[in-house]
Amino acid sequence: MIPGRLPLAVSLGDPAGIGPELIGAAWAARRERDVPPFFVTGGAKIIRHAAASRGLNVPFRPVENPDDAAACYDTALPVVGGMDGEWCPGEPDTTGAALALSSLETATGLVRAGAAGGLVTAPVAKAQLAAIGFHYPGQTEYLAAACGIPPGDAVMMLAGPSLRAVPLTVHCALAEVPGLLSVDLICRKARIVAAALTRDLGLAAPRLAIAALNPHGGEGGRFGDEEARIIAPAVASLKESGLDVTGPHPGDALFTARARRGYDVALAMYHDQALIPLKALDFDEGVNVTLGLPIVRTSPDHGTAFDIAGKGVADPGAMIAALRMAGEMAGQRRRRAAA
Amino acid sequence: MIPGRLPLAVSLGDPAGIGPELIGAAWAARRERDVPPFFVTGGAKIIRHAAASRGLNVPFRPVENPDDAAACYDTALPVVGGMDGEWCPGEPDTTGAALALSSLETATGLVRAGAAGGLVTAPVAKAQLAAIGFHYPGQTEYLAAACGIPPGDAVMMLAGPSLRAVPLTVHCALAEVPGLLSVDLICRKARIVAAALTRDLGLAAPRLAIAALNPHGGEGGRFGDEEARIIAPAVASLKESGLDVTGPHPGDALFTARARRGYDVALAMYHDQALIPLKALDFDEGVNVTLGLPIVRTSPDHGTAFDIAGKGVADPGAMIAALRMAGEMAGQRRRRAAA
Repeated sequence: MIPGRLPLAVSLGDPAGIGPELIGAAWAARRERDVPPFFVTGGAKIIRHAAASRGLNVPFRPVENPDDAAACYDTALPVVGGMDGEWCPGEPDTTGAALALSSLETATGLVRAGAAGGLVTAPVAKAQLAAIGFHYPGQTEYLAAACGIPPGDAVMMLAGPSLRAVPLTVHCALAEVPGLLSVDLICRKARIVAAALTRDLGLAAPRLAIAALNPHGGEGGRFGDEEARIIAPAVASLKESGLDVTGPHPGDALFTARARRGYDVALAMYHDQALIPLKALDFDEGVNVTLGLPIVRTSPDHGTAFDIAGKGVADPGAMIAALRMAGEMAGQRRRRAAA
Repeated sequence: MIPGRLPLAVSLGDPAGIGPELIGAAWAARRERDVPPFFVTGGAKIIRHAAASRGLNVPFRPVENPDDAAACYDTALPVVGGMDGEWCPGEPDTTGAALALSSLETATGLVRAGAAGGLVTAPVAKAQLAAIGFHYPGQTEYLAAACGIPPGDAVMMLAGPSLRAVPLTVHCALAEVPGLLSVDLICRKARIVAAALTRDLGLAAPRLAIAALNPHGGEGGRFGDEEARIIAPAVASLKESGLDVTGPHPGDALFTARARRGYDVALAMYHDQALIPLKALDFDEGVNVTLGLPIVRTSPDHGTAFDIAGKGVADPGAMIAALRMAGEMAGQRRRRAAA
């Protein structure tokens, strides 16, 4: 093990989803795809069976201590914690949800304690988790609470080879978006994004491009006034504080190949404004990164996909990209701490 | 000239924008890019100068009758109508707007009269046109009026090599979109789109995919009810009438490479939902097609770009794609008429 280089902790996700087979596939691809050392918290047998269904032999090695994970990583998938279950792809239930939650809690605790360099979460089923009393809207809100920060300060960024994008509002009706936008919201999240791109990605002066809400940016107030009333003042305020920020940019102009070369991250006003271009361009390699947490956390940008679990067709690209990105972010933090 | 094959009519667009140089560049690329025969209505000297600024020699040939255009097309750019002006790139004024309008009216009249196979419009400046009393929001609304159809029945489709997409609402504030959607709007426009894809693109049973409005399609009503209340009933009604329609599909799921293989056209609920993926994927080749008109009409999916006019950097890809697409649509109509 490289001194000071900690393995990543991976949570199992819903055992009936595509998480287990993708974790196995990522380990199997560790050499040719340069996947950084990781261990998984629980689910050893489930992963072994799920991987076998893809024709992959994934031997596992129970390890007591994350420190031992890197040493065996080359020959076996290190597993911390004995919780496990039966592999029933495509058939989610509360037993599986309980295992997913236990895996998430264990992995989070180990990363929080400094025993792992970062957390990569496989996808969970919200409905199943809710049925066992998990009262967070998603894993990100759970992690914010576990880390003791306000949920609004854990900011979701989607990252692919072509684009990084942050939706400033997320899971709400489109009709509610205009009412949720404010100068304060945009400035607060933009500052979290800028700080995280410096701390975690090593960009000394990250370039932020902020989207307009309305078509053509509202055409001078003809189609909505949020640009003049909210977004432009937020851009001005951020610039005044020394950040490299441009906008508001008409949504359809912001994601052309040429425009993308002009910024490091795009800040979108609503979910689909960020997710549509990301998935159109980078579907199989999209990584969901949580910015603003005290820990490094990434996840593949896809769901449990119960309909294809166990069928051998789920693409491990996003899981591998999430692992690589977490590894790079952890390395960035390590180098900054050592400097 | 191939018997029965009429040349296309091209309107000049704003003479201070990138239209003239792109028309010249398209003619210069007629052989290697297989650009179908066209003539331009007016602006001969402007095009010649604009093309020269790109290092292109574009001789022009005044023709009395569109029928004579194809015969000289190989050796010179055919021009119908003597209206012309000075080339002042990047400096729009009302004189230029009057020329643009005159060119548009002449070209429209010739296509309406059956003297040209289709209309390709170069971009105009709305503010300059408004200043000379043009009271339409854009060229499309003018064309609907000129053809005697309700403006709502002229439906904008954006088409690129990767995607065809129709925004069901267009130039309005995002906040107004939910209130503008109705079962009737979706069904009426979807039927126009389906009929046009059969008539103009030769797709016997076009596959339409209809987007959701809210993130994740509203997640069963948690984030908005437009899917249940409006979009799903519209999809059901369209299916009942025998059309191949699916949806509502979550916006971010609809434009992945895999999803795009499953339909011929995506119907989006608002401007950016259609334009963001189109421009992210196909910016330099996007064609704006007006469906539902009695005439064939396309245009390059970009504006006047006054900031780069005359600098030799504007990409003629979209103009060439618009010409090729109009040529294919005209050919399709011709073959149907002959059958």
